[in-house]
Amino acid sequence: MLEEILAGACRLDPSQPVLAGVSGGPDSLCLLGVLHSAGYRVTVAHFNHRLRPSADLEAEAVSGLARRLDLPFVSDSADVRGEAEQQGLSLEEAARRLRYRFLFAAARHQGAQAVAVGHTADDQAETVLMHFLRGSGLDGLKGMQYRTLLVDFDPELPLVRPLLGLRRSETEAYCRAHGLEPHLDPSNADPAYFRNRLRHVLLPELEKYNPRLREALARTAGALQGDFALLQEVLDEAWKQVAAGQGDGWFSFDRAGLTALSPALRRNLLRRAGERLRPQGHGFDFAALERAAAFAGGPAGERVDFTAGLYLFAEGQRLYLAAYEADLPSAGWPQVGGELVAGSDGCGLGNGWRLTVVKVEPEAGDLSAGADPWSAGLDADRAAGRLTVRPRRPGERFAPFGLDGGTVRLQDFFVNVKLPRRARAGWPLVCVGDQIAWVPGYRIADPLRVTEKTQRVMRLKIQKK
Amino acid sequence: MLEEILAGACRLDPSQPVLAGVSGGPDSLCLLGVLHSAGYRVTVAHFNHRLRPSADLEAEAVSGLARRLDLPFVSDSADVRGEAEQQGLSLEEAARRLRYRFLFAAARHQGAQAVAVGHTADDQAETVLMHFLRGSGLDGLKGMQYRTLLVDFDPELPLVRPLLGLRRSETEAYCRAHGLEPHLDPSNADPAYFRNRLRHVLLPELEKYNPRLREALARTAGALQGDFALLQEVLDEAWKQVAAGQGDGWFSFDRAGLTALSPALRRNLLRRAGERLRPQGHGFDFAALERAAAFAGGPAGERVDFTAGLYLFAEGQRLYLAAYEADLPSAGWPQVGGELVAGSDGCGLGNGWRLTVVKVEPEAGDLSAGADPWSAGLDADRAAGRLTVRPRRPGERFAPFGLDGGTVRLQDFFVNVKLPRRARAGWPLVCVGDQIAWVPGYRIADPLRVTEKTQRVMRLKIQKK
Repeated sequence: MLEEILAGACRLDPSQPVLAGVSGGPDSLCLLGVLHSAGYRVTVAHFNHRLRPSADLEAEAVSGLARRLDLPFVSDSADVRGEAEQQGLSLEEAARRLRYRFLFAAARHQGAQAVAVGHTADDQAETVLMHFLRGSGLDGLKGMQYRTLLVDFDPELPLVRPLLGLRRSETEAYCRAHGLEPHLDPSNADPAYFRNRLRHVLLPELEKYNPRLREALARTAGALQGDFALLQEVLDEAWKQVAAGQGDGWFSFDRAGLTALSPALRRNLLRRAGERLRPQGHGFDFAALERAAAFAGGPAGERVDFTAGLYLFAEGQRLYLAAYEADLPSAGWPQVGGELVAGSDGCGLGNGWRLTVVKVEPEAGDLSAGADPWSAGLDADRAAGRLTVRPRRPGERFAPFGLDGGTVRLQDFFVNVKLPRRARAGWPLVCVGDQIAWVPGYRIADPLRVTEKTQRVMRLKIQKK
Repeated sequence: MLEEILAGACRLDPSQPVLAGVSGGPDSLCLLGVLHSAGYRVTVAHFNHRLRPSADLEAEAVSGLARRLDLPFVSDSADVRGEAEQQGLSLEEAARRLRYRFLFAAARHQGAQAVAVGHTADDQAETVLMHFLRGSGLDGLKGMQYRTLLVDFDPELPLVRPLLGLRRSETEAYCRAHGLEPHLDPSNADPAYFRNRLRHVLLPELEKYNPRLREALARTAGALQGDFALLQEVLDEAWKQVAAGQGDGWFSFDRAGLTALSPALRRNLLRRAGERLRPQGHGFDFAALERAAAFAGGPAGERVDFTAGLYLFAEGQRLYLAAYEADLPSAGWPQVGGELVAGSDGCGLGNGWRLTVVKVEPEAGDLSAGADPWSAGLDADRAAGRLTVRPRRPGERFAPFGLDGGTVRLQDFFVNVKLPRRARAGWPLVCVGDQIAWVPGYRIADPLRVTEKTQRVMRLKIQKK
């Protein structure tokens, strides 16, 4: 049964070495015994937390056992209490981080296929219960798995838990039957630890309501693991299809792709993005997700509150989910912050854009507006004033080419050409004197256009380096 | 806020009537008040459980309130205790069934768009906790929804729970503020009911570990509802693609379709099928599902134990998931149970198949085996013995057409032509004397084939009525 789990659920290869984390308690001694007698090449790894007077004796005992079994032994220790204080962590969390950091480093160094630890069905029940009390979602309630990745410690080496189906009492029985002498950790009884209160007080209390509670929680965890794996797969696939970009505090999605998804998939995708932006949040209630999923299909230019300090913003083909404090990407637009004077060698326009100006003989194409929106020709004699580049002014008007001298509000012009709202305030306007001569990317001013009478053409070009 | 939930999460249409289940307690009076003041046309429905001496007084009070509000009132009562005993149900479950049966029947009769009930956030916490203690999967842990279908009671009319975000204390405060006088159900304090123990003993105990537990459980339920909806959608779609058939105690799937699915999807699909075959089971652990998912891609003809008294069976293009006690479909094969004598008017072969025999002049096509596997021509003079139809005998051999008089074991012949194993024992063999003359569907015997010297042809045909 256990050998089947080693090769099956844990996917361990008997021909490859494995590193076992051995504290010296009954669970980890049982783990070591099981791996060793199944013929695995085990490296015994012990982390000395130095939290108890007996810590060094325990390390000695584990090292002695490794020697008797003729197995390689590695160990390390660290100042757990100091780390906890320095990082603002609980003692348990600091111990966990330092321990796993050591185990994975040692496993990599030894060329081990995996780190094995001795978590049992009792640990599983406590884990699931802890997540339940916290209000976790599927990710937490699914509990621990036989084989998993802890990407914070290693992106590839798996962590395996072969004893996840065994009760703690069974590991103790195993030790007795095999002459292993476990060290009993006195801190396991200390009610100052939340987990110990769950173990010794709450779980027995809950067992009054269901005497087979631990089996029940193992069943729940197993079923939810299957659900979780499938959901991850479905979401990964959809994410690949519709994710458009991401940055500090924001994600963007393709709106057409998003609206082609089913509402349920859209909701879950936005929830995933929300959870990545607010890892501590968990506050993505169904109603908020439903509103967000519906918003994705609405008109562009709109903005709506999401939840957890996030908002949604539809712009052109993109839907942004962003934190209020985040700067959305400018998409590399040319943007100016104040007045700039252009010399003949050109001037910078922000985000790597540069304006250059040359005066040349007229060509046939100068009579029309031209195909390149980032290049414009003006009648140099009519555009004889001081050439400046500046952002828009409130209420400003513009006489676009083709309107025969009539003017429109620049604001309306921006809306008509669908310039993203966020780009408008900093959009560079090339002016002669006070008049807008060219809105780069869009249109020149009609009064300055090249005519058949034009002698010299002032050619303006803006280019991204 | 509440009006938003009526139109939003509950998707109620203010122009359509709605039926409210009103017991007379604070939750249902609050529900009635909220619906009424939001302008909904409410029918007040009261179900008299007749379990308490005060039951008739409570019914009176609700009916009086409906009269004062000028709302239609409907009521019914039933012998809950008798129903519980007769159906072997708990009192709570019998009451629930009879109550919902009445509410949906009344709603249909009134042309209501939905049945509304007064479940609160406290009920939700109790429900989620109850499922947690039982070891439920996602379906249970997701708790109650603002809008749902109870298909056992009505396939179309939804059940809505507008107060699901409200605490019980808030419904009581609402009643006080609006001069509504709720009847307090004394059975709510009776610790004989499991739910009451959760409410009054266990939840307060758990709140020592997380004072905001009810909010936490509501968050869990909300997140899991989203997960559940997406999973259902994904599974529905995959099911449609690969389900091949179903019957009493079995499902069949297309093996090629199944193996084209990802392992996670395959596992979940088989779990769904398993849960439908064993609704009380919940015993579909990950390892069993992983084995089953892998088995789907294995060789045909194999059979493997699943779990919960089910097994998997790969046959041809089908994978069966079946209960041991179920009869798999025979696919309408011709099957014989004993010796049958054929007259000229034919004889029955089981499952509606019939063999007919005629003697005719030879035709050109008779020299070859012919295109129709259910029709055969033999040389009538050579096939002159007694014509019988019978099942195979152990170790029997057969001289198939094309093997030039050589014989093969009938067993090997069946394997070669891929006749499903289950069909073999009852497969009809048309014999002349003791010799197999024709294996319907496959081959005639070479010694009896029509040659150029044949005078008369005996034409055998088997057909399904």
